[in-house]
Amino acid sequence: MSELRRDPIVGRWVIIAERRAERPVAIMDEEERDVGPSACPLCPGKERNTPPEVFAIRPDCSEPNTPGWLIRVVPNKYPALTIEGDLNRRGLGMFDLMNGVGAHEVIIETPEHNARLPDLPLQQIKLVLVAYRERIIDLRNDKRFIYILVFRNYRAAAGASLLHPHSQLIAIAITPEIVKRKLESARAHFMEKQRCLFCDLLSQELRLGERVVLETEHFVVLSPFAARFPYELHIYPKAHCHDFVLMNEEQLEDFARTLKRILCCVRDTLNDPPYNYVLHTSPNPVPRLGRPDYWQTLPYDYHWHLEFIPRLTRVAGFEWGTGFYINPVPPELAAEVLRGELSSKGA
Amino acid sequence: MSELRRDPIVGRWVIIAERRAERPVAIMDEEERDVGPSACPLCPGKERNTPPEVFAIRPDCSEPNTPGWLIRVVPNKYPALTIEGDLNRRGLGMFDLMNGVGAHEVIIETPEHNARLPDLPLQQIKLVLVAYRERIIDLRNDKRFIYILVFRNYRAAAGASLLHPHSQLIAIAITPEIVKRKLESARAHFMEKQRCLFCDLLSQELRLGERVVLETEHFVVLSPFAARFPYELHIYPKAHCHDFVLMNEEQLEDFARTLKRILCCVRDTLNDPPYNYVLHTSPNPVPRLGRPDYWQTLPYDYHWHLEFIPRLTRVAGFEWGTGFYINPVPPELAAEVLRGELSSKGA
Repeated sequence: MSELRRDPIVGRWVIIAERRAERPVAIMDEEERDVGPSACPLCPGKERNTPPEVFAIRPDCSEPNTPGWLIRVVPNKYPALTIEGDLNRRGLGMFDLMNGVGAHEVIIETPEHNARLPDLPLQQIKLVLVAYRERIIDLRNDKRFIYILVFRNYRAAAGASLLHPHSQLIAIAITPEIVKRKLESARAHFMEKQRCLFCDLLSQELRLGERVVLETEHFVVLSPFAARFPYELHIYPKAHCHDFVLMNEEQLEDFARTLKRILCCVRDTLNDPPYNYVLHTSPNPVPRLGRPDYWQTLPYDYHWHLEFIPRLTRVAGFEWGTGFYINPVPPELAAEVLRGELSSKGA
Repeated sequence: MSELRRDPIVGRWVIIAERRAERPVAIMDEEERDVGPSACPLCPGKERNTPPEVFAIRPDCSEPNTPGWLIRVVPNKYPALTIEGDLNRRGLGMFDLMNGVGAHEVIIETPEHNARLPDLPLQQIKLVLVAYRERIIDLRNDKRFIYILVFRNYRAAAGASLLHPHSQLIAIAITPEIVKRKLESARAHFMEKQRCLFCDLLSQELRLGERVVLETEHFVVLSPFAARFPYELHIYPKAHCHDFVLMNEEQLEDFARTLKRILCCVRDTLNDPPYNYVLHTSPNPVPRLGRPDYWQTLPYDYHWHLEFIPRLTRVAGFEWGTGFYINPVPPELAAEVLRGELSSKGA
């Protein structure tokens, strides 16, 4: 079983997951291996090659683990974390660790092996988002988990090991470092000003306009003021909301449309780059071990968003050594370029 | 001029350096371009193709900016930061920023274009370390700078844009995020226990032994308990010392020998991987703007070390989104493999 270990100097948690070296793209492999639909474990007809599905959208009411699905969610065959067992939080001298208990799932976004997410029909992208939502809601019932992270790696250079369109989800027993820092900032801001930090930021960005890429009825897409990476983009709901799962149908459809437009725009402008996106929603709203969890319940502690990072530059020693980044493309320029591309295509 | 910008949510500083897009390996370039010695700006005879040197080791007493050097340090031709000007720390609504003032230098480690650092004679590697030390000492005279970071990128996949062996150095007006967290931990530990946090850690690691790769008279090399990356290694002086520049000649030679052995061992064991290393020394020991700087002076605030990261796996969405890492190779296994390789070669 894998372990979660905490660094005693910087307090950072790491998953030590020995089994991961067995997965299709092993250490040091550079290239995505497109095995083709005939050998792809995510394609229809190969349902027995994955662990049994935990969620699926089957308009034809077909049986689980058979073809007929539009969306299918299965546990990762090479999981970084395992679902069974006890966390067994413990110390070892100066070290802190716990068992690598958690969920690690694959969200298969379409039955079409060679489809690409931005080309999928709007309704299918909406179903992908529905799958995110339903899995988050379901996994929150497991009281061992504190945070659920949905992310997508596109192309091998961004960490994808299979070509078939898919996202991933991890449910863990800690609040991730970066989420914790965002929560702390938002909590401090709210305690001082009784306003949401993210709402204040969006209000300023919409007024200034120079980093805004797209504004829809419910969402704003911007390249952040201190963007770490060229063309880094954040998508925020304009109205305050801490939790992704609280979107209504209209918002969900607007979000799907926004995501599709942004993915198409980036693909066309930046030569189909590898990318990652990560959903930042609020931690699970459940007290843990019978004690009130510091992070839960207050809706003003967070404002959910999606971070999109194209992989255009390599992260070098300077970044690893310092935790801060050199970005050769000012976010104002990135926003201008993408706005131009969006307007040339019309709404 | 570039800018240092602070993210208002997570407090992370970023360098927005538009000029960097002009450097030889522009955005999206994947491959190292070996231009060959005839066109290499770092080779002897091309001294006029770089900005004038700021340091050199010339046993033949040759003139500056001519051939005859063993080590040569020049400002980066495509700097992320510029040396002239005022910091002009300022606010902009919710944002904090300052001018991108700082030093960005290239340490040319040998006149030999095709040499590789681990193959250099021990005395030449020692001169590289002397250059690090002398540049740190010199740049500390500039009271605008708070931290000096020495790092090395090897091969394009680790961010190197030139083949000729070189390290880099950046002097900046902030304490980098990760250094700050280490300082805070060490300060808190010392306040509570009157002992160095790093010394306690080393003592435990040497007692347990399972993550120790190499122990010399003055240094210990280990793969940390919560290693983020496969075969991540840290080199620490065994005796407490907060500042890299305080090494005596004997320690410097032992460090050069240790570095050479580790670089050779990793090259031979892991198929000459791309890597980064970063020197973590204490912040500049100078009060800034006339006020006592929180981070300066107390020698127990830090314990210098070098972090070595082979680039064997790709960092994917999960890591960016959470700030924590999945490492498929337990550090105990990495240490065992490298110990085996070292002992097969003898001392």
